[in-house]
Amino acid sequence: MTSLNDLPLRDNLRGLTPYGAPQLHVPVALNVNENTHGIPDAVAGDIVAAMAEAIRTINRYPDREFTELRESLARYLGHGLTRENIWAANGSNEVLQQVLQAFGGPGRSVLGFAPTYSMYPLLASGTGTRWIAGTRDTDFELSPATARSWVDAESPDLVFLCSPNNPTGTPLSLDTIAAVYDAADGIVVVDEAYAEFGPSDAPSALTLLPGRERLLVSRTMSKAFAFAGARVGYLAADPAVTDALRLVRLPYHLSALTQAAAIAALAHSPEMLAMVDDIRGQRDRLVTELAVLGYRPLRSASNFVLFGGVDDPRGTFEALLAEGVLVRDVGIPGHLRVTAGTEAETTAFLEALAGLGQHSAARPNKLSE
Amino acid sequence: MTSLNDLPLRDNLRGLTPYGAPQLHVPVALNVNENTHGIPDAVAGDIVAAMAEAIRTINRYPDREFTELRESLARYLGHGLTRENIWAANGSNEVLQQVLQAFGGPGRSVLGFAPTYSMYPLLASGTGTRWIAGTRDTDFELSPATARSWVDAESPDLVFLCSPNNPTGTPLSLDTIAAVYDAADGIVVVDEAYAEFGPSDAPSALTLLPGRERLLVSRTMSKAFAFAGARVGYLAADPAVTDALRLVRLPYHLSALTQAAAIAALAHSPEMLAMVDDIRGQRDRLVTELAVLGYRPLRSASNFVLFGGVDDPRGTFEALLAEGVLVRDVGIPGHLRVTAGTEAETTAFLEALAGLGQHSAARPNKLSE
Repeated sequence: MTSLNDLPLRDNLRGLTPYGAPQLHVPVALNVNENTHGIPDAVAGDIVAAMAEAIRTINRYPDREFTELRESLARYLGHGLTRENIWAANGSNEVLQQVLQAFGGPGRSVLGFAPTYSMYPLLASGTGTRWIAGTRDTDFELSPATARSWVDAESPDLVFLCSPNNPTGTPLSLDTIAAVYDAADGIVVVDEAYAEFGPSDAPSALTLLPGRERLLVSRTMSKAFAFAGARVGYLAADPAVTDALRLVRLPYHLSALTQAAAIAALAHSPEMLAMVDDIRGQRDRLVTELAVLGYRPLRSASNFVLFGGVDDPRGTFEALLAEGVLVRDVGIPGHLRVTAGTEAETTAFLEALAGLGQHSAARPNKLSE
Repeated sequence: MTSLNDLPLRDNLRGLTPYGAPQLHVPVALNVNENTHGIPDAVAGDIVAAMAEAIRTINRYPDREFTELRESLARYLGHGLTRENIWAANGSNEVLQQVLQAFGGPGRSVLGFAPTYSMYPLLASGTGTRWIAGTRDTDFELSPATARSWVDAESPDLVFLCSPNNPTGTPLSLDTIAAVYDAADGIVVVDEAYAEFGPSDAPSALTLLPGRERLLVSRTMSKAFAFAGARVGYLAADPAVTDALRLVRLPYHLSALTQAAAIAALAHSPEMLAMVDDIRGQRDRLVTELAVLGYRPLRSASNFVLFGGVDDPRGTFEALLAEGVLVRDVGIPGHLRVTAGTEAETTAFLEALAGLGQHSAARPNKLSE
């Protein structure tokens, strides 16, 4: 039988294993920060109707410029953006890959602040861009001074700022973003995949776009929009940036079905986002209850919570899985990450964790304080 | 206003313009080798039903391994292939990009035989792979000896063989493919995007797969399956090849909607392919009638015909467009390319071309012989 080693694989890929959170079928899946609420039936009906219309001309290539989708996304984002500011692809991973193809690549570097989204170094590697892992402050925060010092020291061609940060959940201030932009000569990407879960009065990096032609703000419909299965990521930036991305995108990269489904979903933004408040509530509940159970949850502006104080992350992960609850071991010692699910899912997780018992017994339990 | 030159674009992208066949709305669009027949209503209904089912869980990430789709594609291809042999992505362009990411890239090279599919050099450039443009024999044929001599001289890391070749339509013999494979140390990709339009007794390169672990046969649902808008390309190869592609693919690159739509379409392969015979008939009619009009059509095993003897390709292109008929100027001096459409579309093209008159007057006209 032929193995990978028998093939003329690129040297830098030898010995690697593919990215992969386990795709297990369990009653309570809280491992990949999905929106665990399905989309409303009425909206689903409109989306299906839009796809049924698109199927009628599916023999033709889709609109390569996805003009109507860009208009819908600009309308959703607001901030005076127009379709000329918008780019989209099959998930924000593909958006970021295209950004690296246009502005990174061999001989260039991208700086991020670890621990951060695990795909960044993989996207860097896949495009031949050198990955620079900067560090964070206490509790995974990122101050303007720390961020700027890394930019000054490394002079990266790109900086990826995850706001709020995955897998830690920590929000990022506009001051840090502006400081990085001012210090950097290159492209600065603010990845706002989870932006909709932040406090409703927290300003988006979109407010920083005017006058900053090297600033890119990426978003996704996977999280707040409950559209992970449809694969729609996008960004807002100066129109010159979208011109650059046209040079590296594969022609017709967004299918007619994807375009139709996303446009229909965006026409129902309020209903699609109706669960965001509920998810924020469960997220806050997780922070409160995890502390009560004696763990050390990080503050989170996202739809998930990273919590420390886990003596044996692998053991706790497996014990929860045995109870039908899937969380994520993101490789940070002493920590696990859990998605804020429905009220019932969140309860199932908290009860399963409490049931493990070992932890509360091992250290002061706030319940008994 | 910011321009591309104000951004830190990669040097090798400076001055480029994006790929783009014009997307014009005209009565008779015969420029990008689409299947101009829509899909049957009954099949469309099943596809929509499958997508309606997929929407119910669209808040979850799709099956990263697209297992059922790979099974459907293996069943369609036959030849004893199983899902372990199959890979798929958003169009065969993405499949080929992933192949180059895994086996090409900086310091490596890919050989093709010009004129050939215009995306090959762009995909090479986008992945940092050096493109080597080999040459063809008379009438754009490619003999085993010619192909082998290029492989021997250049020792490429990959060879892309387009069979039948786009934009010339010329079929490629299994002898040439086998000769290239034997001469090469690297990956050999046979791009069979248009395979279904060949003579029904013409063997596919799929028959060469057993024992050739470096041979990849790529296909698409865009052409014969009339599914260009859905973006589904795929390949068959040794399972070790699909393991390699897992290292470079973006996780969840195929949406749940794409998977559902393609699976439903493949369940109706006979109906989806019902128009192939009709298209072959129009293709043969184009070859016959173009010769009658005094042009020099190349032999074609595809759903399009390249024809020479065009004194002014740009002028003829524009004159046809003024009549509502869009063809393709592929940049080969003295030639234009036209897709075999429906009988009515083919008639419209032939009548518009005949109506231009200039050509028949300018040289011996077979009609009058």
